[in-house]
Amino acid sequence: MPTKLPPSPKHALTAPKGFRVAATTAGIKDSGRPDLALIAADGPCTAAGVFTTNRVLGAPVIVGKQHLRGGRARAILCNSGNANVATGAQGLADAKAMCAAAADALSHTHPCKPTDVLPASTGIIGRPLPIDKITRAVPGLAAALAAGPKADAAAAQAILTTDLIAKSAVRTGMHRESINFGGIAKGSGMIAPSMATMLGFVTTDAAVAAPVLRRALREAATATFNRISVDTDQSTSDTVYLLASGVSGTRPIREASGVRYRRFVDTLTDLCDELAQRIVRDGEGATRVFRVVVAGAKSERDADRIGRAVAESPLVKTAIHGADPNWGRIAMAAGKSGAALNPDRLRISVNDQPVFRDGVPVPMTPAFEKKLSTSMRQGDVVLDLDLRLGKAHCAWWGCDLSREYIAINADYTT
Amino acid sequence: MPTKLPPSPKHALTAPKGFRVAATTAGIKDSGRPDLALIAADGPCTAAGVFTTNRVLGAPVIVGKQHLRGGRARAILCNSGNANVATGAQGLADAKAMCAAAADALSHTHPCKPTDVLPASTGIIGRPLPIDKITRAVPGLAAALAAGPKADAAAAQAILTTDLIAKSAVRTGMHRESINFGGIAKGSGMIAPSMATMLGFVTTDAAVAAPVLRRALREAATATFNRISVDTDQSTSDTVYLLASGVSGTRPIREASGVRYRRFVDTLTDLCDELAQRIVRDGEGATRVFRVVVAGAKSERDADRIGRAVAESPLVKTAIHGADPNWGRIAMAAGKSGAALNPDRLRISVNDQPVFRDGVPVPMTPAFEKKLSTSMRQGDVVLDLDLRLGKAHCAWWGCDLSREYIAINADYTT
Repeated sequence: MPTKLPPSPKHALTAPKGFRVAATTAGIKDSGRPDLALIAADGPCTAAGVFTTNRVLGAPVIVGKQHLRGGRARAILCNSGNANVATGAQGLADAKAMCAAAADALSHTHPCKPTDVLPASTGIIGRPLPIDKITRAVPGLAAALAAGPKADAAAAQAILTTDLIAKSAVRTGMHRESINFGGIAKGSGMIAPSMATMLGFVTTDAAVAAPVLRRALREAATATFNRISVDTDQSTSDTVYLLASGVSGTRPIREASGVRYRRFVDTLTDLCDELAQRIVRDGEGATRVFRVVVAGAKSERDADRIGRAVAESPLVKTAIHGADPNWGRIAMAAGKSGAALNPDRLRISVNDQPVFRDGVPVPMTPAFEKKLSTSMRQGDVVLDLDLRLGKAHCAWWGCDLSREYIAINADYTT
Repeated sequence: MPTKLPPSPKHALTAPKGFRVAATTAGIKDSGRPDLALIAADGPCTAAGVFTTNRVLGAPVIVGKQHLRGGRARAILCNSGNANVATGAQGLADAKAMCAAAADALSHTHPCKPTDVLPASTGIIGRPLPIDKITRAVPGLAAALAAGPKADAAAAQAILTTDLIAKSAVRTGMHRESINFGGIAKGSGMIAPSMATMLGFVTTDAAVAAPVLRRALREAATATFNRISVDTDQSTSDTVYLLASGVSGTRPIREASGVRYRRFVDTLTDLCDELAQRIVRDGEGATRVFRVVVAGAKSERDADRIGRAVAESPLVKTAIHGADPNWGRIAMAAGKSGAALNPDRLRISVNDQPVFRDGVPVPMTPAFEKKLSTSMRQGDVVLDLDLRLGKAHCAWWGCDLSREYIAINADYTT
C-alpha cells in the first residue's frame, strides 16, 4: 500500500540554483488572500509547457504556448482569483500585458522580453482580468524576489483558489549528480460560477536542451498529471511549466536518450507524481485516495484507458467512499473502457487481496470481507488489475466521490 | 421546454397484435417481489437486439446474441434479482437452461426451439443463478400468458430491480397504417454489491424482414437508449430486444429505405425515446432531468461526443442540481469532448435564454440570473449548444447528481 505523504516541503521552487520567487496580494481575490506570484530565473532558461487539450482555452494558455515556441523563458507570472477565460480579445491583450509588465519590472535585474515571460491565471471565468491591479503589483514583486523556504511557501500559497492546502515538492540530487528539482501546484476545484484549474510550475538547475526538455516534460506529465482524476472534468486553463536554469554545473543533457536523460525523466516524473498526488489528496470532497494499478495490458494506450475508466467511474468512486471491495464495479469499469480485455483472464485485487479471478469472484467469508473493508477505511486503497494479455502497465490516482463534492459543486449559489 | 411525461401506460407489450405476456414471483429476489416475466408471440417473429459494448458480459447477453443470429425468435424470458454475470461456465449453462425451460413450457401452445427464446437477467452479480426456481416457475408462466393492460403491467413490474417505478410506452398506429408498438424498460441502478442494468423489450405487429428490423433497432437505439446518461457507467448486461409479429395485416417492410421504413424507424425511435426518458427520470438520486440539444456540429459523431460530454459532466450535473445556469461548465464540458469546436462561434442557451455567445458570456443582471435559476427549478432544463460549424445535431438526456446518488451507491453496505 502506498504510504501517506508527508506535508509539503516549504523549500521548493528555489531549491534548484538560479531561481528567485515572490508573492503578494494584488487584490484580485475578494477574500484578500495572496493572489499573485512571480518566478524569475537569474539567467536565461530553457523552458517547456504542457497544456489542457480542451478546445475552449484560457487566454494565458494561448499566450503561454506562443511564448514557448522558442523553447526559452525567464519568468512565470501567475495570478489567482480570475482565470482570464471567455474574455475575448481583451483577455488576450491582458495576458500579454501581464508578460509585458513582468519584463518591464525585471528589466534592470533580469533583462528579458515580454515573450520570455509565461503567464498563468486561475479562478473565476468570464470576467475581465483586473489587469491594473496586476501591473501595479508587479514592480513590488520584482523588487521582493528572493530564494529560500519562506519565499517558496508564499508562492505556493498565492496560486491557490479553492484548494485547502498548498502543494509543493522538491528533489535534491539526481542519481549522484548535484541536479535539483522543485515544484508547486494547485488543484482543480470549482468556485461560483466558474471553474478552477490544475497548475504546476517546476524548476530545475539542470542544463537541458529545449527540445529535450519538452520531451521530458511530456513524458513526466503523461505518467502523472495526466493520470489523476478528481471529477473527470477538464479545465480550460490546465498548465504545467518547466524552467531549466542550467547553472548546476553538471554536463548539459542534449539528447532525449541515454542513461542521463532517463534519470532526468525519472526524477522529474517522481516530483510530478508527488505534486499530482497532492492534488488528488486535496480533491473536492475527497475523503479517501485510491491507486489503480493496471498490468498485463496489450498496449500502454489500453492500460491507460482502463486505469482512467476505473479511476473515473462514479460507481467505483462511491464504492471506495463506502469502503466496499466491489470487484463487480471495478470489472464493469474496466470492461467499458474499450480496451482489449478478456474477463476469463482478468485478475483483480483490492489492497493485495484477490477478489476476482478467471471470470468469477473469489469466494470470501463475510468476516473476511469485513476485514478487507476495514483495511479500506484505514488508508489509501490500492486496486490491482492484471489483464494477463501483454506487458503494458500504468497507474492512476483517484479519489472517492462524497456528499461533500455535491455540496461544494451544487450548493454554491444558495 | 419538454413537458413532463404522463405516467406509464398499463397497456404496452400486448398492444401490438400477436403477443401475450405473464409474470410471477419465482423467489429469486429476497424481497419476495415479482421477478420473472415471459413474453411470447403467437407465431414466429423476426427479432433483433442491441447490447452493451462492455467487454465484461453477462451470460444472457452472450446467449441472446447467439440466439438472434438467425433473426428470428418466439419468446423472451427475463428474471430480476440475479444478473447471471461473472458466473463462469455454469452461468452460460443456466442462461441456456432458461431458454430450454421456456421452449419446453411453450411446446404445446407456441412450439419453438430453445434457440427461439431470448434470455435476460438483471440484479445481483457474481452469484449462481437460482435456475431451479426459474425452471419450476416457467410452466405456470406459460399457462398464464395473456394479453391486456393487467398482464402488461405485471410484466413491466417483474423486470425491475432498484427502479422506483415501472416503465412502459405504447404507440398505436404508424402514420395511417394500423401498426402498433409497445415496450417496457428498466433503468440502471446499483444494488449491493453489484450492478444493475438497462433492459428494454419492444414488440410490434409490423411485418419487417430481419435485417431491416436489426438496422431499424440500431438506428432507434442509437438516438435514444444510447443517448441517456445517469452516471456514465455501463452495465455488463444492457440489452434491448425487439420482436416483430407481422400480424398487423399491413404490407411487409423488406428494405431499409423508403418512406415506410423511415416511418417505422421514426415511430420506433419515438417509443424508445419515451422509455429512455423514463429511465433517466427514475435515475438514482435524480431530482431533475435535462435535455442537451447539440446543433451545428461538423459531424453526427461530433454532435454525439459533445452531447455525451455535457450530459455526463459531474460539474454540469451538479450545476443543474443547484439550478445554476453555469455557461462555463457547459462550455468546458463541450470543449473537453474532443469534437471540433470554436469557442468564438459557440452559442449556449439555458431554457431558451442565451448565456454564452462569441466566446464570452452574455451579460445578465443578478435579477435576471435569479429568474433563470427559478425556471430551472420548475421543470426539465434544456441546454442548447449551437456550434455553428456544420449541420449535424443530436440530443441527449441527463439527470442531475445529488447527495442521494452518493447515499444509494456508497452507503449500501453500512
